[in-house]
Amino acid sequence: MLKILQNRRTIRKYSSREIDDVLLYELFEAAFRTSNTGNMQLYSVVVTRSEDMKKKLSPFHFNQPMVMQAPVVLTFCADLNRFVTWCNLRNAKPGYDNFQSFITSAIDTAIAAQTFCIAAEAKGLGICYLGTVTYMTQEIIEALELPKYVVPLVTLTVGYPEDTPLQPERLPVEGLLHSERYTDYSPEDVSRIYAAKENLPVNQNYVAENGKETLAQVFTDVRYTKKNNEFFSSTFLEALKKQGFLH
Amino acid sequence: MLKILQNRRTIRKYSSREIDDVLLYELFEAAFRTSNTGNMQLYSVVVTRSEDMKKKLSPFHFNQPMVMQAPVVLTFCADLNRFVTWCNLRNAKPGYDNFQSFITSAIDTAIAAQTFCIAAEAKGLGICYLGTVTYMTQEIIEALELPKYVVPLVTLTVGYPEDTPLQPERLPVEGLLHSERYTDYSPEDVSRIYAAKENLPVNQNYVAENGKETLAQVFTDVRYTKKNNEFFSSTFLEALKKQGFLH
Repeated sequence: MLKILQNRRTIRKYSSREIDDVLLYELFEAAFRTSNTGNMQLYSVVVTRSEDMKKKLSPFHFNQPMVMQAPVVLTFCADLNRFVTWCNLRNAKPGYDNFQSFITSAIDTAIAAQTFCIAAEAKGLGICYLGTVTYMTQEIIEALELPKYVVPLVTLTVGYPEDTPLQPERLPVEGLLHSERYTDYSPEDVSRIYAAKENLPVNQNYVAENGKETLAQVFTDVRYTKKNNEFFSSTFLEALKKQGFLH
Repeated sequence: MLKILQNRRTIRKYSSREIDDVLLYELFEAAFRTSNTGNMQLYSVVVTRSEDMKKKLSPFHFNQPMVMQAPVVLTFCADLNRFVTWCNLRNAKPGYDNFQSFITSAIDTAIAAQTFCIAAEAKGLGICYLGTVTYMTQEIIEALELPKYVVPLVTLTVGYPEDTPLQPERLPVEGLLHSERYTDYSPEDVSRIYAAKENLPVNQNYVAENGKETLAQVFTDVRYTKKNNEFFSSTFLEALKKQGFLH
């Protein structure tokens, strides 16, 4: 089982094979068994299979080809709406229109999504997380008709792998661990932790292709820029307000 | 493998058996293989084993006995500090002091934590998520000496199970799924989805013990009150500001 987790790859190209409904149900059953706060299960999943809805969602995921190509697209949402509706119908006054309720359900949503992914991979499927979901949040809310107290947080494309891509590098495990207290990173620590990543030919080519001096500059100047991060911060916070979690 | 996921239980009582360092390393190795945004690996884990640090953390987790009793307590943190330090040392100007960077790393942190849990459970360990970490965030930041751009999000207690508790109920899978678009819940939907939960003898006793009319009231009036949620919203947002993710 650890081998499945260690050998996994993100899959961006899918075969034409459909995903059986019974299998999909079993994967959700496993996912919804995941630990969750107070057993409130504060999440929902919107299942996209139709060509129409994929076409609608695709631009909000920057037209990444996985959306149109995967047999199934899943949007895992933090969902206080179902719980609040239940409270209101049971003579209970809900107090969940706040940030703590959002962050609690957000963490629960993410860990349920990840259990789904591991279950799917164990059954021979491949998945890809689309980070665009927290960029184009308001557009996705409208496309999926999400009511107040529902925020999309994880989008996955799911299908049978068409190929087996190479595994990307990872930082050394010990570089992410701290014993008892956080030990801040000295320049020597940083060099040691990032050395393998920086020296990888594929990453060195990447720096050259982008006309940059360092790999870090590819991230700050091209991939995850201050300007974009600030813009998508404001759109995401705006969506949290509209959905009722920030005042 | 799906059986492991479906049969899992949260473990709150641990045997005295220690967790081998090599095993723990393998579990982290599996966890850090998890999908993550841009392969930036924006998280850190603080490993607590010492009696001293457990005693320090315990009150911030409302003295839940798992903290003192488990051989290992893990605090998974959203961590932009390591990445920002790397950028600064590599002549790159980081733009990660914003909410989008936080939410991106928060989701990545949660899914890495959940992969750790599944790996641990596959190896016979038991885990418990402590939701208190997003309540007492500032106190935990200070106890673990987390620098700017680091926010604790998931605390896990980990150890070998002392017993096998009953599995709590879950809502029916179809109650959490939406096909193509979100379909809002009618009163009939809510009654159908929550019926089994509300009729469970253990939950009916729970309502009676708390002197309430409905199960929903136990949540709104006792377990997750508006007052507490609002208070912990303000403390969490304050911590996000102090750590550099909100202005």
